[in-house]
Amino acid sequence: MKKFAVVLAGCGGFDGAEIHEATLTMLEIKKQGADYQCFAPDIPQHHVLNHLNGEEMKENRNVLVESARIARGNIKPLSELNSADFDALIIPGGFGVAKNLSTVAFDGANATVNQDVEKVVKSFYDKQKPIGALCIAPAMIAKILNDVQVTIGQDKGTIEAIEKMGSTHIETTHGDVVYDEENNLFTTPCYMLDADIVQIHDGAYNIVDAMLGVI
Amino acid sequence: MKKFAVVLAGCGGFDGAEIHEATLTMLEIKKQGADYQCFAPDIPQHHVLNHLNGEEMKENRNVLVESARIARGNIKPLSELNSADFDALIIPGGFGVAKNLSTVAFDGANATVNQDVEKVVKSFYDKQKPIGALCIAPAMIAKILNDVQVTIGQDKGTIEAIEKMGSTHIETTHGDVVYDEENNLFTTPCYMLDADIVQIHDGAYNIVDAMLGVI
Repeated sequence: MKKFAVVLAGCGGFDGAEIHEATLTMLEIKKQGADYQCFAPDIPQHHVLNHLNGEEMKENRNVLVESARIARGNIKPLSELNSADFDALIIPGGFGVAKNLSTVAFDGANATVNQDVEKVVKSFYDKQKPIGALCIAPAMIAKILNDVQVTIGQDKGTIEAIEKMGSTHIETTHGDVVYDEENNLFTTPCYMLDADIVQIHDGAYNIVDAMLGVI
Repeated sequence: MKKFAVVLAGCGGFDGAEIHEATLTMLEIKKQGADYQCFAPDIPQHHVLNHLNGEEMKENRNVLVESARIARGNIKPLSELNSADFDALIIPGGFGVAKNLSTVAFDGANATVNQDVEKVVKSFYDKQKPIGALCIAPAMIAKILNDVQVTIGQDKGTIEAIEKMGSTHIETTHGDVVYDEENNLFTTPCYMLDADIVQIHDGAYNIVDAMLGVI
């Protein structure tokens, strides 16, 4: 059975992993006959946002502990992820990817990336194993791998940052998947577009289906 | 377009709304051509559990604020839910239903139920509008409505409590839906069984499909 490593960035679209994208990615991996193991870095969240009003809350939360809510406790520290044990890597979106796993949300093209995240992505890349990224996650992948082809949909500011990183952006709409064949990299825009949950499901279905096609 | 009110109990299976059940319920409502609005009570959570190790954390979280993570901010206080505006009510599971919306997790047959939750359930019931409940939520519905027919799967302790409440329990397995026609009540076991995410999707699909059949 083919096995995906799923990397989560917390629990909630504004400060962590986007819940619908993460859940529907996990659903489609299983539904299409493969299996997954979730991972997240054991680090503090950049901040905690009240998802009702968008305001910052005076709290500290941990990315691994909050990600465990989406994974129902079945999750491991990202430092334990060995690419040799998996056929593919997939990273759902949510601003946690751009705030906790990297600083893309604040620093754009000059972002830094968490060391364990960078190590994991490069390790799958070096083994030519497929990497999938949803929503804002492709911008982080572009920062790590430099000269790749990705989509985050149509957001002008993010596209500009990706191009400054030395990568190529392809504009897409709901459910589209861009396949950068040279780098075995799959990306889809999800909630980087003004989408509903059915369109997120389409994106998750399509990216998992495309990735399974090359494993 | 038919409209569901979805009541959430926080964000996370051990102390809030179960994330997969909530997300997949929302997905199926939209996918089957209806629409939804999320609601949650504006009350403190009973407690906060670390979903990695099950331990209690010394934190205070609010049910409405945490539920907003699953709803991506598009959620209203339960006190604003008017059953006249909706065709159906559906309550995903997670222990938040038995800890925040009611005390079923602690008091079994002697549980108390949050006043707004009780009011809402009785209001849909009095109008003979369909009510759906997943996972542990049927036990809370049994406490509110007394003499009804429900399923929570096969868990002996919970079945005993439901029978003490004056209701009838039907044993079921993955994806099954029990329809209590007299009371227009639909229930399905989901993670009250040892299930995977595809089986949760089956349950969510089946209960939404069955409810849409009577609206």
